[in-house]
Amino acid sequence: MDAPELIRKKRDGFDLTRGEIFSFIEGFTRGEIPDYQASALLMAIFFRGMDRRETADLTEAMLRSGRVLDFSALPQAKVDKHSTGGVGDKTSLIIAPAAAAAGVLVPMISGRGLGHTGGTLDKLEAIPGFSPRLSFQDFHRVLGKCGLAFGAATEEFAPADRKIYALRDVTATVESIPLITASIMSKKLAEGIDGLVLDVKTGTGAFMQKVENARALASSLVSTGIAHGKRVHALITDMTQPLGNAVGNALEVIESVETLKGRGPRDLSDLCRELTAHMLLLGRVTDSLDDARSKYDSVIAGGRAFERFSNVVAEQGGNPRSLEDYSLLPQARHEDAVVAPKDGFISGLEARAMGVASMILGAGRERSDAIIDPAVGLVFEKKIGDEVQAGERVCVVYSNDSSRLAQALDMIRGAITISAEPVSPPPLVLERVLDTQDQ
Amino acid sequence: MDAPELIRKKRDGFDLTRGEIFSFIEGFTRGEIPDYQASALLMAIFFRGMDRRETADLTEAMLRSGRVLDFSALPQAKVDKHSTGGVGDKTSLIIAPAAAAAGVLVPMISGRGLGHTGGTLDKLEAIPGFSPRLSFQDFHRVLGKCGLAFGAATEEFAPADRKIYALRDVTATVESIPLITASIMSKKLAEGIDGLVLDVKTGTGAFMQKVENARALASSLVSTGIAHGKRVHALITDMTQPLGNAVGNALEVIESVETLKGRGPRDLSDLCRELTAHMLLLGRVTDSLDDARSKYDSVIAGGRAFERFSNVVAEQGGNPRSLEDYSLLPQARHEDAVVAPKDGFISGLEARAMGVASMILGAGRERSDAIIDPAVGLVFEKKIGDEVQAGERVCVVYSNDSSRLAQALDMIRGAITISAEPVSPPPLVLERVLDTQDQ
Repeated sequence: MDAPELIRKKRDGFDLTRGEIFSFIEGFTRGEIPDYQASALLMAIFFRGMDRRETADLTEAMLRSGRVLDFSALPQAKVDKHSTGGVGDKTSLIIAPAAAAAGVLVPMISGRGLGHTGGTLDKLEAIPGFSPRLSFQDFHRVLGKCGLAFGAATEEFAPADRKIYALRDVTATVESIPLITASIMSKKLAEGIDGLVLDVKTGTGAFMQKVENARALASSLVSTGIAHGKRVHALITDMTQPLGNAVGNALEVIESVETLKGRGPRDLSDLCRELTAHMLLLGRVTDSLDDARSKYDSVIAGGRAFERFSNVVAEQGGNPRSLEDYSLLPQARHEDAVVAPKDGFISGLEARAMGVASMILGAGRERSDAIIDPAVGLVFEKKIGDEVQAGERVCVVYSNDSSRLAQALDMIRGAITISAEPVSPPPLVLERVLDTQDQ
Repeated sequence: MDAPELIRKKRDGFDLTRGEIFSFIEGFTRGEIPDYQASALLMAIFFRGMDRRETADLTEAMLRSGRVLDFSALPQAKVDKHSTGGVGDKTSLIIAPAAAAAGVLVPMISGRGLGHTGGTLDKLEAIPGFSPRLSFQDFHRVLGKCGLAFGAATEEFAPADRKIYALRDVTATVESIPLITASIMSKKLAEGIDGLVLDVKTGTGAFMQKVENARALASSLVSTGIAHGKRVHALITDMTQPLGNAVGNALEVIESVETLKGRGPRDLSDLCRELTAHMLLLGRVTDSLDDARSKYDSVIAGGRAFERFSNVVAEQGGNPRSLEDYSLLPQARHEDAVVAPKDGFISGLEARAMGVASMILGAGRERSDAIIDPAVGLVFEKKIGDEVQAGERVCVVYSNDSSRLAQALDMIRGAITISAEPVSPPPLVLERVLDTQDQ
């Protein structure tokens, strides 16, 4: 393959053929195409984009670079959910058991958090003993037995993505919709799923801060899934403030369990209900969103969703008693409160700053090799739209390392805005992007 | 320096500061910034461009990466000429001695040919014994004695350019006006010159095939020169057909000598007169182009231009007798003719194809490490606009390797077009881009 000619073709706005895309990805993954040519091509893709066919081919080339799981021995529909990342986004812990209890299989393979956003694996590992490191046989067994299993994204899935992502990170080529699409979808399609619900976050705490970018990404993800014969729905959801009340790993486990028990905060409960309903629709458990929502309500009210979570935690080495007695989860030593400086209505809890404050406390990672503290984080007692009096608690801060506390408190204070006038909470689900057959 | 942040800045259309540009070039030249970040930045520059200030800073950063010559001990103005490259472009061999004879110093440092274009060093080295590898002391001495000297571009001049050019070549980032500008000007400014005439070629045989691109490059080169306190003029000249009649190293030496003796082909003689006139204007030898043209005519007619060339050849180890007795120059063994297939007027001698045909014969290099044959090449007996009869010779082909001859002949035949109607020769100088004080 003539790599400079291929770079020139994309640079000049022409589409790359399937063969060219596969040659490039295979050559790069094998180390035959050097990083400097790959980064030039990535920058050309950043500027010129890729059409749907190219994006689907890129996704497939990256998918084929590694292992693809096969759960065809299990008869039920396999459906997963993926979020583009946010602050306080613990929906996976709730909707995976809820959807499993309602009749789909959820083979969920997740990553860790980086920067201001959390990761599902970090949250689950706050449960004493829990491990996502399962062999394929064990993963298959847990999935068959519980209807869900939580695995870790390892080198065996889409290794081309790992190599490309590392290069994108250091060459300012992260923010490209076809590249983001191929990165997400190559890993998700490796799970051997039939359907996928995408939670594309938008707002200050999200990767896609503008709704038009979120919409473009959602559309690209859905069409790439369809091109691979999968059923895919995307919801564009709010990330201007943290989702739910808790930010931090053990704190989010507690909030997830409360939500599974029907006692979760309104926004988190509502979003989990919507995401689960779409999973059930894609898994053909129901024919309508309304029926699917009722199913969600029923597995929550009947305790079956919580039961599935408790079972999978036990199967993966975790202590299910910690889901009843939260004192068995990691506990922070210090508790501080950020109070409202004046009377009014909460008009902003800037999500990114809250995520960074949580990271500063130790709940997240600034670098991928950092160690996190599962106990620390934030719990909001007020959300956007709530009325507050001066001196009333807005946020409780749980910390262990007092040297970082002042900086986190400053950050949180700066991220709270209070309006004299009443404020409406932001709408939770902004748009839905459905594959054609369900529109 | 935060390289990804700097790449992102350019990617998003912001100007880089002088400090950022210097940090990047210095870091890359020292090997601290890896190739993959440099190629991503180069591609971002390809798409976003650089303004005049950025281009001047990039040029200076590359210039400062190596040695800058200093001829301030010699009182006369130092003026050079640079061509962006063409087929049959041997003007350097003529105008350097002509300008020197008329009173400016010409410290000319040249490169070798690549692809379909020739290089001044290759042409000069066709003269038995001639060497461009001079120490600075010898270069200075020859320049002082003859008014001109021919040197070779070595690693000591603008090493950053060498490293960047190698990367651009394999990452499809060659065709960028600020990058081309910095590459040319960093090497030319290293010559310690006061003025520079640029011959920006346009047409099928040129790097800039479209006149609007040639104009943009000319403007960028001139403004970068001005930013460095130099006087710079650029001429945009035709490269739709080879310049002069000869293409090939020894053949071009003969044609250059004939031109110095006042017997050169019309187009070559005219262009040399124009380029030299601009050099004399920049060197303040005359105040007007017309006076400068008369000076050129006088140094040619009086034999002083040829005498300078003969002197510099002798000073640099070449045999000056070969400039009188051309049989002392390398001779090709075979001579073949390409004749007109029909009566009419020559309407095209496609320059790039003629350059490639000459390269196939061995006069040029497909790769930078190839060995060339100084004897072979083409001599045109007809140029665009000339009337021909069927069977009349259009081009004489001089070759040594008969295995490549058929391919070259095919290429030449395919590059000749004949019109039934009379055709005007293309205008030679299309536009002039002068620095403000001379406009």
